[in-house]
Amino acid sequence: MMRPGAKQYVVVRPVYSEESFAEEHAKVYRHHKTMLDHVKQYFTCDAKRAKNAALSLLPIISWIKTYQIKEWLVNDIVSGVSTGLVAVLQGLAYCLLASLPPWYGLFSAFFPVIIYFFLGTSRHISVGPFPVLCLMIGSVVTRLVPDDGVAANITGFEDLSRDEQRVLVASSVTFLVGLMQLAMGVLQVGFVVMYLSDTLVSGFTTAAAIHILVSQLKFVLGQQVPGISGPLAVIYTLEIIFNQITSTNVCDVVISLVIMVVVFIVKELNDRFKSKLPVPIPIEVIMTVIACGVSYAFDFRTRYGIDVVGYIPKGYEPPVAPNLHIFQETAVDAFPMAIVGFAVAFSVAKVYSVKHDYTIDGNQELIAFGVSNIFGASFKSFAASTALSRSAVQESTGGKTQVAGLLSAIIVMIITMAIGFLLDPLPKSVLGAVVIVNLKGMLMQFRDIPYLWRRDKPDCVVWLATCIASILLGLDLGLAVGLGVELLSVVLRAQFPRCSVLANIKGTDIYKDKKDYIDIYEPEGVKTFRIPSPIFFANIEFFRSKLVEALGFNPLRVLRKRNKALRKIRKLMKKGYLQWTSTGFLSTSHGSMNESEDESNMEELDLPTDFKGLPARIDWNAELPANIIVPRVDIHSLILDFAAVSFVDISGLKGLKTALKELVRVEVEVYIVACDPYILEKLHDCGFFDDEVQPSMFFLTLHDAMLHILEKHPQPTEKKSDLDRITTTVTVHHPGRHVRSRDRNAPDPETKF
Amino acid sequence: MMRPGAKQYVVVRPVYSEESFAEEHAKVYRHHKTMLDHVKQYFTCDAKRAKNAALSLLPIISWIKTYQIKEWLVNDIVSGVSTGLVAVLQGLAYCLLASLPPWYGLFSAFFPVIIYFFLGTSRHISVGPFPVLCLMIGSVVTRLVPDDGVAANITGFEDLSRDEQRVLVASSVTFLVGLMQLAMGVLQVGFVVMYLSDTLVSGFTTAAAIHILVSQLKFVLGQQVPGISGPLAVIYTLEIIFNQITSTNVCDVVISLVIMVVVFIVKELNDRFKSKLPVPIPIEVIMTVIACGVSYAFDFRTRYGIDVVGYIPKGYEPPVAPNLHIFQETAVDAFPMAIVGFAVAFSVAKVYSVKHDYTIDGNQELIAFGVSNIFGASFKSFAASTALSRSAVQESTGGKTQVAGLLSAIIVMIITMAIGFLLDPLPKSVLGAVVIVNLKGMLMQFRDIPYLWRRDKPDCVVWLATCIASILLGLDLGLAVGLGVELLSVVLRAQFPRCSVLANIKGTDIYKDKKDYIDIYEPEGVKTFRIPSPIFFANIEFFRSKLVEALGFNPLRVLRKRNKALRKIRKLMKKGYLQWTSTGFLSTSHGSMNESEDESNMEELDLPTDFKGLPARIDWNAELPANIIVPRVDIHSLILDFAAVSFVDISGLKGLKTALKELVRVEVEVYIVACDPYILEKLHDCGFFDDEVQPSMFFLTLHDAMLHILEKHPQPTEKKSDLDRITTTVTVHHPGRHVRSRDRNAPDPETKF
Repeated sequence: MMRPGAKQYVVVRPVYSEESFAEEHAKVYRHHKTMLDHVKQYFTCDAKRAKNAALSLLPIISWIKTYQIKEWLVNDIVSGVSTGLVAVLQGLAYCLLASLPPWYGLFSAFFPVIIYFFLGTSRHISVGPFPVLCLMIGSVVTRLVPDDGVAANITGFEDLSRDEQRVLVASSVTFLVGLMQLAMGVLQVGFVVMYLSDTLVSGFTTAAAIHILVSQLKFVLGQQVPGISGPLAVIYTLEIIFNQITSTNVCDVVISLVIMVVVFIVKELNDRFKSKLPVPIPIEVIMTVIACGVSYAFDFRTRYGIDVVGYIPKGYEPPVAPNLHIFQETAVDAFPMAIVGFAVAFSVAKVYSVKHDYTIDGNQELIAFGVSNIFGASFKSFAASTALSRSAVQESTGGKTQVAGLLSAIIVMIITMAIGFLLDPLPKSVLGAVVIVNLKGMLMQFRDIPYLWRRDKPDCVVWLATCIASILLGLDLGLAVGLGVELLSVVLRAQFPRCSVLANIKGTDIYKDKKDYIDIYEPEGVKTFRIPSPIFFANIEFFRSKLVEALGFNPLRVLRKRNKALRKIRKLMKKGYLQWTSTGFLSTSHGSMNESEDESNMEELDLPTDFKGLPARIDWNAELPANIIVPRVDIHSLILDFAAVSFVDISGLKGLKTALKELVRVEVEVYIVACDPYILEKLHDCGFFDDEVQPSMFFLTLHDAMLHILEKHPQPTEKKSDLDRITTTVTVHHPGRHVRSRDRNAPDPETKF
Repeated sequence: MMRPGAKQYVVVRPVYSEESFAEEHAKVYRHHKTMLDHVKQYFTCDAKRAKNAALSLLPIISWIKTYQIKEWLVNDIVSGVSTGLVAVLQGLAYCLLASLPPWYGLFSAFFPVIIYFFLGTSRHISVGPFPVLCLMIGSVVTRLVPDDGVAANITGFEDLSRDEQRVLVASSVTFLVGLMQLAMGVLQVGFVVMYLSDTLVSGFTTAAAIHILVSQLKFVLGQQVPGISGPLAVIYTLEIIFNQITSTNVCDVVISLVIMVVVFIVKELNDRFKSKLPVPIPIEVIMTVIACGVSYAFDFRTRYGIDVVGYIPKGYEPPVAPNLHIFQETAVDAFPMAIVGFAVAFSVAKVYSVKHDYTIDGNQELIAFGVSNIFGASFKSFAASTALSRSAVQESTGGKTQVAGLLSAIIVMIITMAIGFLLDPLPKSVLGAVVIVNLKGMLMQFRDIPYLWRRDKPDCVVWLATCIASILLGLDLGLAVGLGVELLSVVLRAQFPRCSVLANIKGTDIYKDKKDYIDIYEPEGVKTFRIPSPIFFANIEFFRSKLVEALGFNPLRVLRKRNKALRKIRKLMKKGYLQWTSTGFLSTSHGSMNESEDESNMEELDLPTDFKGLPARIDWNAELPANIIVPRVDIHSLILDFAAVSFVDISGLKGLKTALKELVRVEVEVYIVACDPYILEKLHDCGFFDDEVQPSMFFLTLHDAMLHILEKHPQPTEKKSDLDRITTTVTVHHPGRHVRSRDRNAPDPETKF
């Protein structure tokens, strides 16, 4: 069907195998860097590099120079104050997750921010406590220093109160997290966060939200529940809560509900009238202040037995050295914390860097967080990352640079140094309620499940596996399981691809799945098999079995039958039962034809058929003498389409070679087309080629190989009408061809031959 | 360069986009099975399926019918007796690895074999103790029941001697391993062994050989060393051995050395004269018999203080129930055992099944081993798999079916029931020496390292990581680490592929890496970018950055600059500083041009450029009024070559869509070519397309898209000579074209229009 004005695709050129193409087209020699070159380059040092390195280690130097005081400072002050108030509240609240006395959360919203101001590359994130990370710290803390029962046997725990032990554990873990982040930054391995895909992070944070919800229930219900860590902690905690549901403090429940409802509604309004409000209403801060006042006025603590924040000491505490024994006990826990803390901060930072069009540097961020945590840990703060909600406040109130962050730290400092006592009467249930309301966003991620299920089942499985494992096994083990499932999903996608047999769309150079089209042409004796994915250890056997299926015979089995037949023919000839005449074999006797099969030397049967000692080659598809039957092979050529093979590993290479050898030995010519140049290079390097598997089997395109085959094996006459379409293209000489050939400044054919 | 007789590639057809191709070529409707269909099919049951299922569950029914008593029985008897003798020796020896009294190894060479006879599909493997598995059991046994110190607190351990406790642990673990294997078989998940690539297995077994070697040193040196399990056990064990090197029993060392040298030499001879020997010399059995005799005659035990096998009780012991408490303690250890035991047996079985041309069924093998282990565990045998060396004996001595296995079990039974006492004086150092000599093959795998390093670095890293982790962390953790590294290696191969910019080989439809060839042509304003691997979460960012690099500009940044410029122009026009005339913009004043940038509504800058309110569209590459500068975009079209993209996941899809949108918004036309039909289908299903990203951007081949672009954007005249080569192919109408078109029985163009 020709559409009027349809553009034409006209190509006239020689048929190219990879070898003939390489002959005609000189390749530029490109020096590929060896590993040594890379190492050398990495360690080369000149003045400029040194300067750049220094600058990238202290990003503040670059941005402070361009700081526009007149325009930015007001914005930064407004943003800093708003963020500071939120940071105070969140610091207290998230501290509950970490099972530490509340005021340590204020430290965490102060010390790390100071360092990040100098070292960080993001201008908009608010550094400080991150609920998921707090929870992970809490899990370590309650494991080593349980609520009931004895603390772990750690040197340095003697003479310390339970809270002091806990703070020591938290700050030591934080120190270790910082060391790990610093090391990763220095080793430039920040790219590992790539493996935390959106799906994985979504499943993981949803599970974290469940953990947080469960851990805050005790405050909201006013119950006494010991912190539980390890696998199934969520289940055990819920069990305890339900068992003592009768001891719920009704007053706590009422306060929490009121706070939750009000905060929820105002937050929704904030969202809806985002464009009309200059600054979102800081409803959490307002509610906290009100709650403080009411609690103080009516003395909630003594009257209703409500658990309040209580005494907050003024000022900071002297620095503390981390405990090496705790390092040993928590090394396995610290690693996922280092990863999660950094990954969350980095992903939030990236969103804002894209929005405001500046670059952030993953490795420098690792260094910044590493140093921040090491520094913070020395002053008893716990691991810092960023909270999405707090960063949103900092950015949406107009923060331009980390000056806003610094100001928020100063607000926190003022609270710590001067007016912290005002927070004494704040009920813990208020903090719990605030934390729970802030989970909305994370819990909404459950909507990803149906979305992913409809679009991509493997991704949905990764989400579910990560989420369920993180809920049941705990966040650290859950993250490991999630990562494993995620890596497996990549392998699985490439493992069972849909292989197809291709055929020609008549009159074109296009090949499509034979089963998909009606008007499609497959030349007789030629099979075209498409391998639609990389070839590696997990799928090479799959491909071989699919290939056997597509061919309709097992080459190895055919080879063995042929070799057995040859053995038998030789034996019969030796005994004189069979003779060679000009017309072929002549059986002289049928006497002892049915001898038992000789099963010795099985290995020999796998060697190429050897016609030595026989008067002629045997045509295996003709009738054989002495009722010897060998399976028919109707195919003379096989084309393997390698267009989608993006890599081949050693197992794939070995399996491929074996498969090719088997095919060559049953006299099927194999052609590999559209192979990636790097794979071809690798095959040469790995000694893939020998007498049977030769580089000449590689062709540039599928059509090139097909034209080559059709010239070598002309199609039978009764099929002529069909084959016309392809073979005419082989024989027709386009009139313009020679002109074009000269055009290309190539040596004239005559000059060479 | 035309070679005489070179075949010509001539193609004349319309230029096809995916849409126009689909219009012209009807696709066959193929019903793809939904998950529900698969489930239905799986649970459909008819008489035939039931019969097949029953037959596949009891493979013996099939092969026993075709058993050729006359020809096979003699072979099986010879093979069975030889294998049986080896099995006795290996049973005793490998029992030392499991830290159990030697005679339990005889049980393991008996009970599982009986069950496998009925349920197994392999005809050549010799079921029974496998050294690596024995070692893994030994590690659990010594963890729960250490040599010195108290046994773990397990109900059921009271009133049992240490050896009885150990046997209970071993048989309970074996029971659990059996249950896991049976479950995997029933759930048809035998394919998991695919993930144990040759590289992984090689690294793992090499590490196992090191473990075995170290564990046997104490017997060879005649030392007393407690069994140590857990990470770094090898190091600790070696430390102990070297510390007490002075207490070595010289007599043990001499015996071991003699045995090792003799066995080693005779084994080499066996190998060399394989073809000439009817049956390999059973040198281990001979040496053992001699050692027994000598030890008895000279009373080694009392005279030289040599540790001997000692009392072997006659007959079997009553069955025992597994201990549920031990199940809990060892569930994590049992899983890798179940995998390793099965994987080794299956890979050995596969080698023989290919050699002797019969099929084995992975899931049935799992069931067979599962039931064998459950049955064996009830009679105090430990986990069975197969030993490569023993299976080689069974096959090479002519074994045809598992009748040989059954006979070997009977030999073992005779030893157990009647003449076991003859083995009493056998020195343990002899057993240790035999085990060590048999490690040769496994240790030779160290030669894989240079081989893999030269050929494929990632594979080499997998090998090393698996081996080192297995040596240092123990076999179970090492296997997990190895698997993780292996999966990661697959992801890594696809993560940082070499992207390339393609260009046209003049006068052809072939596109190659622009940097690789001299005589290569890239039309002006067109970039062709090849994505050489699947697109998924770990590499989508990499591709986007490489694309920006190839384009030479960042589309998002350009879009924002343009939108800012528009905003400014609108403002200037409003204020009357700028006027629109027929010749373009006219600046009327330069007064307040340098206004500060308006940073509000950052989001709006990412929207498509909107010329509303402006008198004309703006040509961004022309000079702009009022000194507004916007980065030039020299590219009007981008072609993405998707030929090697074998899958796209959700993250890849999202990132791709964002990238395409950004490009479309800066007025770059994007074409995607050679996309896999299943990916295209998926894009449609996932709502990939909208007003900006349209299905019309998909073309069949790169050349189709290029021809389409060149017609749409004719090349500038000064380049005519170059472009000639491609554009002539657009305009030339091949004379034969219409004839061919009618040939295809397609409706005549006239009839339609």
